[in-house]
Amino acid sequence: MPSYTAPTKDTQFVLHNLLKVTKSDIPGYDELEPDFTSAILEEAGKLTSSVLAPLNAVGDKEGCRLENGVVYTPKGFKEAFAQVKEGGWTGLDMPEQYGGQNMPAVMGSAVGEMFSAANQAFTMYQGLTHGAASAILAHGTDAQKDTYLPKMVACDWTGTMNLTEPHCGTDLGMMRTKAEPQDDGSYKITGQKIFISSGEHDMADNIIHLVLAKIVGGPEGIKGVSLFIVPKFMVKDDGSLGDRNGVTVGKIEEKMGIHGNSTCVMNYDGATGFLLGEEHKGMRAMFTMMNEARLGVGMQGLAQADVAYQNALDYAKDRLQGRAVTGAENPDGPADPLIVHPDIRRSLMDQKSFVEGARAFILWGASLIDAAHRAGDKEADGLVSLLTPVIKGFLTDQGYDMTVKAQQVYGGHGYIEEWGMSQFTRDARIAQIYEGANGVQALDLVGRKLAQDGGKHVMAFFDMVKNFIKENAGQDATFDKDFLDPLKAASKDLQAAGMYFMQNGMKNPNNALSGSNDFMHMFGHVCLGLMWARMAKASMEALAEGTSDVAFFETKLATGRYYMARQLPATALHLKRIESGADTVMALDAANF
Amino acid sequence: MPSYTAPTKDTQFVLHNLLKVTKSDIPGYDELEPDFTSAILEEAGKLTSSVLAPLNAVGDKEGCRLENGVVYTPKGFKEAFAQVKEGGWTGLDMPEQYGGQNMPAVMGSAVGEMFSAANQAFTMYQGLTHGAASAILAHGTDAQKDTYLPKMVACDWTGTMNLTEPHCGTDLGMMRTKAEPQDDGSYKITGQKIFISSGEHDMADNIIHLVLAKIVGGPEGIKGVSLFIVPKFMVKDDGSLGDRNGVTVGKIEEKMGIHGNSTCVMNYDGATGFLLGEEHKGMRAMFTMMNEARLGVGMQGLAQADVAYQNALDYAKDRLQGRAVTGAENPDGPADPLIVHPDIRRSLMDQKSFVEGARAFILWGASLIDAAHRAGDKEADGLVSLLTPVIKGFLTDQGYDMTVKAQQVYGGHGYIEEWGMSQFTRDARIAQIYEGANGVQALDLVGRKLAQDGGKHVMAFFDMVKNFIKENAGQDATFDKDFLDPLKAASKDLQAAGMYFMQNGMKNPNNALSGSNDFMHMFGHVCLGLMWARMAKASMEALAEGTSDVAFFETKLATGRYYMARQLPATALHLKRIESGADTVMALDAANF
Repeated sequence: MPSYTAPTKDTQFVLHNLLKVTKSDIPGYDELEPDFTSAILEEAGKLTSSVLAPLNAVGDKEGCRLENGVVYTPKGFKEAFAQVKEGGWTGLDMPEQYGGQNMPAVMGSAVGEMFSAANQAFTMYQGLTHGAASAILAHGTDAQKDTYLPKMVACDWTGTMNLTEPHCGTDLGMMRTKAEPQDDGSYKITGQKIFISSGEHDMADNIIHLVLAKIVGGPEGIKGVSLFIVPKFMVKDDGSLGDRNGVTVGKIEEKMGIHGNSTCVMNYDGATGFLLGEEHKGMRAMFTMMNEARLGVGMQGLAQADVAYQNALDYAKDRLQGRAVTGAENPDGPADPLIVHPDIRRSLMDQKSFVEGARAFILWGASLIDAAHRAGDKEADGLVSLLTPVIKGFLTDQGYDMTVKAQQVYGGHGYIEEWGMSQFTRDARIAQIYEGANGVQALDLVGRKLAQDGGKHVMAFFDMVKNFIKENAGQDATFDKDFLDPLKAASKDLQAAGMYFMQNGMKNPNNALSGSNDFMHMFGHVCLGLMWARMAKASMEALAEGTSDVAFFETKLATGRYYMARQLPATALHLKRIESGADTVMALDAANF
Repeated sequence: MPSYTAPTKDTQFVLHNLLKVTKSDIPGYDELEPDFTSAILEEAGKLTSSVLAPLNAVGDKEGCRLENGVVYTPKGFKEAFAQVKEGGWTGLDMPEQYGGQNMPAVMGSAVGEMFSAANQAFTMYQGLTHGAASAILAHGTDAQKDTYLPKMVACDWTGTMNLTEPHCGTDLGMMRTKAEPQDDGSYKITGQKIFISSGEHDMADNIIHLVLAKIVGGPEGIKGVSLFIVPKFMVKDDGSLGDRNGVTVGKIEEKMGIHGNSTCVMNYDGATGFLLGEEHKGMRAMFTMMNEARLGVGMQGLAQADVAYQNALDYAKDRLQGRAVTGAENPDGPADPLIVHPDIRRSLMDQKSFVEGARAFILWGASLIDAAHRAGDKEADGLVSLLTPVIKGFLTDQGYDMTVKAQQVYGGHGYIEEWGMSQFTRDARIAQIYEGANGVQALDLVGRKLAQDGGKHVMAFFDMVKNFIKENAGQDATFDKDFLDPLKAASKDLQAAGMYFMQNGMKNPNNALSGSNDFMHMFGHVCLGLMWARMAKASMEALAEGTSDVAFFETKLATGRYYMARQLPATALHLKRIESGADTVMALDAANF
């Protein structure tokens, strides 16, 4: 059975050595002293490793069960959910006004990674609630906020997102769910929604569904879509629960993974709904949830990669098989541990260098959100908007690949469910798909974000990389060679790809879109390369200042060197593919495939 | 529910346009006239698509069941197995003397791909039997052949391979299963074997286990391993079945996929076994099975990729979502089909160009086996020995990735088991693991096969590529640019990697082994590049000669161009990683991970 250890020390490194949070002037960051963040991370680590992680396999094996309209979560989930609520974890980065602890997003992300790694299916119940609460917070009336947020921040009530219908996922303009205005200002919602995570379950008194629907008589297509609050139980004026609303669960889907989360078909049959935000501006309101969810999903890619890596590492140290090619390293034992073998090392280093780079990337992204939301930093806002599809698409594609590599370390045992490595890959797989499949992320990046505000944000990103190189070059020849030179080369590749799109995308947009997936991946590599160069610098600073933990910082440098030497050069291949253009991609008539 | 269509036309292209089988002087190839091979492929196509494919999901859902020592296969398997036997498919490429049809391996592979694609878990019952029969054919006494082969060729009795034990997989020298010599020349076998595919089931009268064990008092380690025939039921002199032997199934493993195949823990408790081949030369005898099995597993990578691709293609043509960026292509419908989108195209072209390239590679490999076995061609024998780890490792890694891409085309529906795409990835995953995990294949390639016979075979491979380029260059500028130039560049990368290993592997073998995985993949790409260049040439010939099916050959050319432009350049990245050496890979002490 796999285990999980929260990466407290590494997270502290990112918060304090890399991001230097207490030196930032983002409101609230001054409170993030190392002792304070350490206390929170340690507590979160205990809860996730001792309570949530042991339930991960239980959830996978048992799944959710629908009986007479009631969904039962796996054994132990209810008790664990109560513990999570009691610890105040559900409102960590929510406003105090509604019962939250008002911590910045960077702490929400640091803790969120642990929750996702320990038990992704379980954590989705509170994750979706957080997203729905954020949408109400951003777009709700004061009355709506007062009615729903205290309960949702505490997870006494949970939330859902209802977008997809059987015939439309990405293309929501084709939506059929309708909303009929009532005299009292409410709406009657009718239609079917599918793939609704946490759609129905037995862990909360009420479920607040956020539902996209078209108001009858409104504009055609995506411009006629509005967002509604549809509670499972109606809420009376005094806040107590009233009648059951007209929303029922049709079935629970049988999925490849995340069995512990109830993915439901939801049927709305004249259910009472309340408009959230403006009429026909539902997509805008929904995107508050979506953007938050996309960053959260990117984090899931990292989280599953980390827990899978941790277990692969343990196995590689324990399992005795074969001898090191350079001479026995465990001569008194029957064989050497797997970790002596170079190809096992390669795989572990791929995983380790990804996980630590991705963690820095995620927390940097969260700090940009804090800068945008708490300090009104428009540049940070633009940058995180640009990076959102990269975080979602790159980290989940790579994260999935890492879980596959971790599983491979186990050989045959990796394929046997009892050992738990299969679950990590099966659970990680969904992150490439939901909240906009990764092809849609790539399209968003190349088709929309690159040119946003006249291309200002991508230019700012390139400047940031260039300035970092300029400011740090020429001081240490090894650092230049191992970190700055590869970063420079990769960044140059990325700029060349952007240039190719500009020059060739105008005459034929397919030239840009044929390279969107490659561009998203090369962008991700450059971001991780930047993170590694910054982490290397931070490690050199720590070593220069004198530290009692030399091994930690030297390991960090060595791990970074691996990433720069073995992973970052992928940008050249992506560029080559992009520059080959659309011709070979679009050559065939559909009939000739 | 997914469907499967046998790739009869494409297989015919490979057999006749590419390999030109009837012009070969390999014994038996003169019979492979297009009408003849077409008739066989059509029949195999009917059986696999109409009988085996519909049982694929059934096997996945139902799995195998152990009750009171009896293993029950999923509903419908027994009847289908009877149909397969009745059609004579189980002995297609087995000697007539034992009831087979004596066809060459190239036909066995062409048909085998269809079986694997339609239902991998089901096909493993006959696949393992084929491997065990081959080992008996190669190493058995005449009496053993007469006793077992007629029944095994007909699949009245099935076979298994018993290598792995709980504490040892790759490192079989640590094996504990023992064989005690008896006065009558037989042995008593005692020990536990795990991961035994088709270990016990209800579809055959007898099961012939081939078991590796150590004869008591023999040499230590791998040099003391012998191979034994251990029948489930003893076989009497008249060929009828006698007493139950001392072998029982301990449990059926719960696996990530191939649920329709019974993967068993087998307990040998003083079971009667008969030496197969020589004492202490068990590994040699087992490798007859292993090499055949590795090629078969490589084929599974192709097969799962093909069936997944076929369904992704259907979905991409059917599912309406969004509009082409260059203008609506289905203006009367609510949206355009997915296939209009460049990123979906990219994914489909990745899949298509892999599948067709891999098919050519597999059948070329099979023709080399025929040349070696039927015509005593030592060069072909050396070449296929070199290519075996490439076929196994590269085609299963890539094949798996292709099933993931195919699943991704379905968006959320790809994650729902009902749609069947998850099964293709879960089933394909095992092929990267069994018959020697792909890391072991890479080690075999770099640590053993490269230097085999003084490096003769790899030099022969390079010469073959060089000669092909030389013989065909300068006749058609487009062909040169689209095919020969990329092939030349990729082959140069591969040679540079080999050169790096020679120059740096001597002083530190880790420099070679740190790059083994990359080398295996770049080798695979060069093989597929060679196949595509040859297929392009064959297509140009067909077009020049005049054909009624211009679209087929032009599609072939366009698909090849895609591979050369977008996939083959991966060799440069692999080379770059290899040339970065072992330093970053081996930098950390195990304790510092």
